[in-house]
Amino acid sequence: KNIAILAGDGIGPEVTAEAVKALNAVAETFGHQFKYAESLIGAAAIDATGNPFPEATEESCKSADAILFGAIGDPKYDNDPNAKVRPEQGLLKMRKNLGLFANVRPVSSYDALLPISPLKEHIIKGTDFVVFRELTGGIYFGEPRGRSEDGNTAFDSCVYSKTEIERISHLAFKAAENRRKKLTLVDKANVLATSRLWRETVKEISSQYPKVELDFMFVDNAAMKIIQNPKDFDVVLTENMFGDIITDEASVISGSLGLLPSASLGTKSSLFEPIHGSYPQAAGKGIANPLGAILSAAMLLEYAFELKEESQIIKDAVANSLKAGFATEDIQKENPKNTKEVGDFVVK
Amino acid sequence: KNIAILAGDGIGPEVTAEAVKALNAVAETFGHQFKYAESLIGAAAIDATGNPFPEATEESCKSADAILFGAIGDPKYDNDPNAKVRPEQGLLKMRKNLGLFANVRPVSSYDALLPISPLKEHIIKGTDFVVFRELTGGIYFGEPRGRSEDGNTAFDSCVYSKTEIERISHLAFKAAENRRKKLTLVDKANVLATSRLWRETVKEISSQYPKVELDFMFVDNAAMKIIQNPKDFDVVLTENMFGDIITDEASVISGSLGLLPSASLGTKSSLFEPIHGSYPQAAGKGIANPLGAILSAAMLLEYAFELKEESQIIKDAVANSLKAGFATEDIQKENPKNTKEVGDFVVK
Ligand SMILES: CC(C)[C@H](C(=O)O)[C@@H](O)C(=O)O
Ligand SMILES: CC(C)[C@H](C(=O)O)[C@@H](O)C(=O)O
Repeated sequence: KNIAILAGDGIGPEVTAEAVKALNAVAETFGHQFKYAESLIGAAAIDATGNPFPEATEESCKSADAILFGAIGDPKYDNDPNAKVRPEQGLLKMRKNLGLFANVRPVSSYDALLPISPLKEHIIKGTDFVVFRELTGGIYFGEPRGRSEDGNTAFDSCVYSKTEIERISHLAFKAAENRRKKLTLVDKANVLATSRLWRETVKEISSQYPKVELDFMFVDNAAMKIIQNPKDFDVVLTENMFGDIITDEASVISGSLGLLPSASLGTKSSLFEPIHGSYPQAAGKGIANPLGAILSAAMLLEYAFELKEESQIIKDAVANSLKAGFATEDIQKENPKNTKEVGDFVVK
Repeated sequence: KNIAILAGDGIGPEVTAEAVKALNAVAETFGHQFKYAESLIGAAAIDATGNPFPEATEESCKSADAILFGAIGDPKYDNDPNAKVRPEQGLLKMRKNLGLFANVRPVSSYDALLPISPLKEHIIKGTDFVVFRELTGGIYFGEPRGRSEDGNTAFDSCVYSKTEIERISHLAFKAAENRRKKLTLVDKANVLATSRLWRETVKEISSQYPKVELDFMFVDNAAMKIIQNPKDFDVVLTENMFGDIITDEASVISGSLGLLPSASLGTKSSLFEPIHGSYPQAAGKGIANPLGAILSAAMLLEYAFELKEESQIIKDAVANSLKAGFATEDIQKENPKNTKEVGDFVVK
């Protein structure tokens, strides 16, 4: 199997290296062969080529069986609102050009981490839901977007077609069928025309999944309920921008953003990445939590290669490292381990 | 002073009645005269006139010195995505026609309620911030919005002008000057053109408020930080949709949505309302928490009439009722009081 590696910016390279170590350990134990091809993305790619998602990177992604991605983003671009090229454009172009329309983010509590979550134990213990976030539509990509000629007015467009809604909805309903059979559509149908199309389309599709109970929730209410009653959720389906917000919000449940993996699925490609971002303040210090990247490698094995046992072994190793208190400083205040040590423990 | 009363839908009438009682108690004690004029809005107005914000209501609002508003919304409209007239349209039309461009929502923890918040006590104790949400622009009102001719594509537009950003920013900076002098702009400048205009404009304006420290936060990150470190925030400034989401999210800090008041400020009018919404399941049962409405009346006294002492007396009475365990069932599980009893306690 060929895996494209896009380590990206900030702590991306450090955590990706640990995920590759975990993949290699699995390959050795189970007798698989994984071949890796590294390429540039984000600020690193801008520095080298002027393009945050160079053609060579796109080719490498398209010819791979799966993509393992680190992180993107650099503060030198964030603080310049008029920068012509920004690292994030590379991420968005990649999602669009590879057709990665469904971002899947599991959210669960870890018993070992209950003490470090800002939420009370009885609220989060046992939480287990998964968010399906639409990733290639909505206000992230809609046209027109930009400035009026005098520069005094700015505009963005949120656009959704029925087809875009349908394809991710089918994935979400199928996931619900294999879980607790509950699907919650998060939208703002009391205000947005796009949300009303979502509601209408999802309602239509639901007749094909009679075992799944469907309900609707306004995004403002969902932002509250995810904190108040996270155990109530099973599969959450939502559009791009709402998904961006509520998945990061939901990360507080696990206790650390550094833990959470994600999968971005398309018809031809699939990409796996920790949700934590480039965290530039930590880059090069050896303090970054590699578990989000390692769990992303576990998702890669499960979703891209259908290697369930191999995937589970990685997840178990991560749970063991947390139980053993073998973790980076975002999780383990006393006697924290460094990035490499945590990766080594998981490998072992 | 003339106060327009728009009780609205669901629990709106019940909680508004208690807020009026509190205003009357203040009037009597301090020798003020408040005159009330009630009018229709929302589903109640649709039922009576076919229009969720009738002209008579608009006139009443425009001729009043302040507006006290209950809630809007009815599930019979929510579940019909194609309903031609919806109660929420009345709310949005009211905001737009009265020019209520700044929604101000204070968020703080109540010591008596620390046990019922889903967040841990050390996280929230001492939280005290205020969100300035832009209320008459952005994706709530931008044109074009609607459907393609074949009905298979939907679109919404997010539009902001520099002027719209400036006027609310000045209010937020002034509030920060009177508080802990920190302002956080929440946006998505790494993706949205409108957010980049926000960032640019707010940065320009900040030079007029040299004592206020300004920082920027992406909305996904903010959704996380509000739960992790709510005490870090002082004044939060944001656009309409992001404000909708993060203010409801932030309500978990206080322990109950039922507690939170808000002010919507314009150049000519100002409106005060609890943030809880119409909560139709509770309507008519006497279980609705009136404290959000009562605290909205306190905000009315402070913001619209500059009656600080009178406002403070109401706030103290609310804190006392919480301390005494004299509260509705959303807060007080054992031996809860009903809506009217809580209102009576505050009045006393
Ligand atoms: C970096 C940014 C453009 C991106 C997004 O908003 O999608 C990130 O927040 C994410 O969730 O992957
Ligand atoms: C009812 C709805 C249209 C409204 C909004 O989204 O603004 C509500 O959620 C609010 O925050 O006042």
